[in-house]
Amino acid sequence: MPVSTTRRAVVRRNGDAQPARTPDDLAVESPLVLGLEAATGAGSDAIATLMRTPGHDLELAAGWLVVESGVRRPDDIVTMRTCREDDTDRVHVTLRAGVRPPRPRAFVTSAACGVCSADVLDLSPLAGGPPHTEGWTVAADVLAGLPASMRTRQRAFDRTGGVHAAAIADAAGRLGPVREDVGRHNAVDKVVGNALLAGGLPARDRVLVVSGRVSFEIVQKAVAAGAAGIVAVSAPSSLAVDLAREHGLLLAGLVREERWNVYAGDELIA
Amino acid sequence: MPVSTTRRAVVRRNGDAQPARTPDDLAVESPLVLGLEAATGAGSDAIATLMRTPGHDLELAAGWLVVESGVRRPDDIVTMRTCREDDTDRVHVTLRAGVRPPRPRAFVTSAACGVCSADVLDLSPLAGGPPHTEGWTVAADVLAGLPASMRTRQRAFDRTGGVHAAAIADAAGRLGPVREDVGRHNAVDKVVGNALLAGGLPARDRVLVVSGRVSFEIVQKAVAAGAAGIVAVSAPSSLAVDLAREHGLLLAGLVREERWNVYAGDELIA
Repeated sequence: MPVSTTRRAVVRRNGDAQPARTPDDLAVESPLVLGLEAATGAGSDAIATLMRTPGHDLELAAGWLVVESGVRRPDDIVTMRTCREDDTDRVHVTLRAGVRPPRPRAFVTSAACGVCSADVLDLSPLAGGPPHTEGWTVAADVLAGLPASMRTRQRAFDRTGGVHAAAIADAAGRLGPVREDVGRHNAVDKVVGNALLAGGLPARDRVLVVSGRVSFEIVQKAVAAGAAGIVAVSAPSSLAVDLAREHGLLLAGLVREERWNVYAGDELIA
Repeated sequence: MPVSTTRRAVVRRNGDAQPARTPDDLAVESPLVLGLEAATGAGSDAIATLMRTPGHDLELAAGWLVVESGVRRPDDIVTMRTCREDDTDRVHVTLRAGVRPPRPRAFVTSAACGVCSADVLDLSPLAGGPPHTEGWTVAADVLAGLPASMRTRQRAFDRTGGVHAAAIADAAGRLGPVREDVGRHNAVDKVVGNALLAGGLPARDRVLVVSGRVSFEIVQKAVAAGAAGIVAVSAPSSLAVDLAREHGLLLAGLVREERWNVYAGDELIA
């Protein structure tokens, strides 16, 4: 069973009081190497190293592939296996013949960059039909309550205060599995991967709930998953708003208490 | 002059009150392509696309190169020029002959991944001597006051609530320039680049102040910059703590009011 939090001795300071040495729970961050195996069994090529919080690694790999490759249905992934080699966690994936593999990209950015290659800005191959059925709406009070509902299930955050969370919810406010990770993008990949593996993509008529800010890439992931919208605790960037509008997504941000903002798709709120 | 915030019409909702359409300030997010030019003038190769908040793009490029290449001194960069081609902002850099260029890495991760290639975990070439002179200490109340001091200068955050900030401070609590960006890694790259271009690296006896969480990669950037420590508003990951300890850095986190935690280097606090 992977460990998502761990302990270190820290010194707690509190004004002029005597500093106190005490154990503290931290979110685990460690590398996961994704490998792509040829269907012919000719070995595995490493395609990415993700710094993630261990747990739900297969979901993370599957969700990452939804954005980065042509994976859209559970049977697009023929096999996934986890192993530990050279002291590093790995997931090896075999894609169905004909599924577009992740693009090898020559140019790499620093982490948290948002986008690793300019051509990723072209989202046309990602969308899988309209994100909501005609007439679909979601009630304002349901939307506004989603972050608090997710918050009650952020176990690793309770212990560490240092992890992001994501979930997919329907218009009745029912939350699917909550996933947590030191990387807010990883948390989204995990819930998207969970939905993919359960046959639940596209996430039409459902919204992605995220604990952090909404960058361009978070909207990109929602579009790839076919979700109807995004509900976020923090603020979106300009490009995130523009992309959500372009794809007809609902985008609500700074959803903390009764006061919140709708950046796109206000007509979808009943 | 680059624009770091922009306006969009949003709908503000507040409980049962009538929703109000109003302009809202958002942090700009847009791509910056980094190109590396051969000293021979044979053209420019794109090496990365960073999704960033415009402004201080040359600092961002320079700071990114401190971690990703062998750049350590101002004259390691022979020329940097900005331009706008194909509707995209670009920075073209020429490195001094003999400076290790950014490693071409075959494997790319999703954004916000932390680390794009396992070999980045090897930090040995990054350190530039001990991060502090013998006997260096910083007063607890100075450390604890740094985030609030930085907060008074987070102009884009004031307007948008959606950007991270970073700065470099000395043991007297004097803050250098504050830089803001939708990406917390970019904000760090900008202050590191600012220091590099001003001849201020290594940042010995100074600490990096960051508004967000401390992942492995933030510590990696501090180590590359030769900083003595990191003071963060949010929590660190396990790997961040381990890396800070390994390199003898001070790491203070969850520094919000009088109460905060020291994860590494408590002996450096007077």
